[in-house]
This record gives sequence, C-alpha cells and structure tokens, in this order.
Amino acid sequence: MYPHAMEWLEKVKWAGNGLVPAIAQDARSGRVLTLAWMNRDALARTVETGEAHYWSRSRSKLWRKGEQSGHVQKVRTLRLDCDEDVILLEVEQEGGIACHTGRESCFFRRLENGEWVETDPVLKNPQEIYRT
Amino acid sequence: MYPHAMEWLEKVKWAGNGLVPAIAQDARSGRVLTLAWMNRDALARTVETGEAHYWSRSRSKLWRKGEQSGHVQKVRTLRLDCDEDVILLEVEQEGGIACHTGRESCFFRRLENGEWVETDPVLKNPQEIYRT
Repeated sequence: MYPHAMEWLEKVKWAGNGLVPAIAQDARSGRVLTLAWMNRDALARTVETGEAHYWSRSRSKLWRKGEQSGHVQKVRTLRLDCDEDVILLEVEQEGGIACHTGRESCFFRRLENGEWVETDPVLKNPQEIYRT
Repeated sequence: MYPHAMEWLEKVKWAGNGLVPAIAQDARSGRVLTLAWMNRDALARTVETGEAHYWSRSRSKLWRKGEQSGHVQKVRTLRLDCDEDVILLEVEQEGGIACHTGRESCFFRRLENGEWVETDPVLKNPQEIYRT
C-alpha cells in the first residue's frame, strides 16, 4: 500500500454515487481513448497495480481494463483536475485498441454536416477479441 | 439551424439529468484541457456557433466558455463515443488558458509518491482574468 493512501484518495471529490469520470489518453499518440468511471477502490487498485481499473456502471462491478480482451492500460501518469472531481490517465494501450468495438479509440464518430459519421477503422473483430 | 438537427441531437444518450460529459482537447498540443457538461442546448449552440458551450451544474445555467475570461474555445471537430454518451471536442484554445486558475489545462495536478503535486505554472493571474 502507498503511504498516506487515505489522504490522496480522500482528496478526490467523489460524487454522491461514489464515482468520478476518468479519461484515458494514449501516452504516445495523444489520442483520447475512452471515458470510464472510477470509485475509490478502482483508483486505489489502479495505483497499486499500475493498470487501469474502473467501475462498470452497467455491471455494477470493479473491472480491470483488458481482463477479458487483453487490452490492458498501463498507467504512466495520473492527473486530477482543478475541481478535484475528474481523473486523467496517461496510458500505454496494450494492442493499440481501447474500444470494445475493436477500434483504437471509443471516439470513432465525428459530426459532419449534421450527421455522426464513423471515421475510424475496426482494427480487430470484436468476436475475436471476446472469443473466450 | 442544421438540417436534421433533431436526429444528431437525439442520437446522444442524454442522462436522466439531461447531461453528458464533454471533454475538450487542444487541437495543437493534444493536451486534455477540461471536462465539462453539456445538455441538448449547449451542444446545439456549440455546433451553431463553432464555440464551445457547456451547462454549468453549479450555476444551473448555459455557459459560453470564455464569456467572462475571453478564453473562448473554437471547435474544430466534435466526436461521440461508442456508447453515445460522451462528447469529445477538439478545440483551439483562445489565450492558451482553459482553466479558471489561469493554467493551460485543468489537469495540473499529478500523483507522485502518494501525493497530488501541482506540476503546471499559472500563466495568468485569475484576478486579472476575471477583472471585469
């Protein structure tokens, strides 16, 4: 465990539901990969292991990013914003794929002339990613 | 107004409170600048004007970024994530300052050995920014 664990964990202004948004950014490309959610436990385990952990709101469980897909996020730096209620992770994205659709980034749609257009290629078929 | 305005606005999965998180990233440096919140009106005005508008949860009002500080965000691209509930804006940050503390980015604290350390300089005194 880290020294002063409670202090840095309690510095974060957790919302009423115990969560804050966490943005993952690729350390090499600078691409914003995903926004997920963390609770105290997710942040503590992220720091302890050096791998991104999130809280899955849909499954109501702690989730180590890549536990099924292998697309682990190795954390280089962790940042906290001015209001102390948003986390930013600079990560090395295993496999170069962060999105469950098999794309590099979850932000693969761009607004063009009033329509959301898919601009990014699928790098790996999700059925292959989640085969097991 | 955009054609099909309702379609692309309704494509976004607004939360129960009518909001989604919106991440602003600097188009030049790639730095993640801030996370704020948008409702339908904020997103519609952002697209209409080409300048980032957000919903202030603390003031319960629509807010044109930079309306007081002059630190307007000119929007280059707008992206939507795989779950259609997070917006990513690539922006040109007027003045090179996004944070109300006078720093480039709101993410100016980094976790180092169990402490949140301020790593970024204040570029302009907030009292000068919000003089008027």
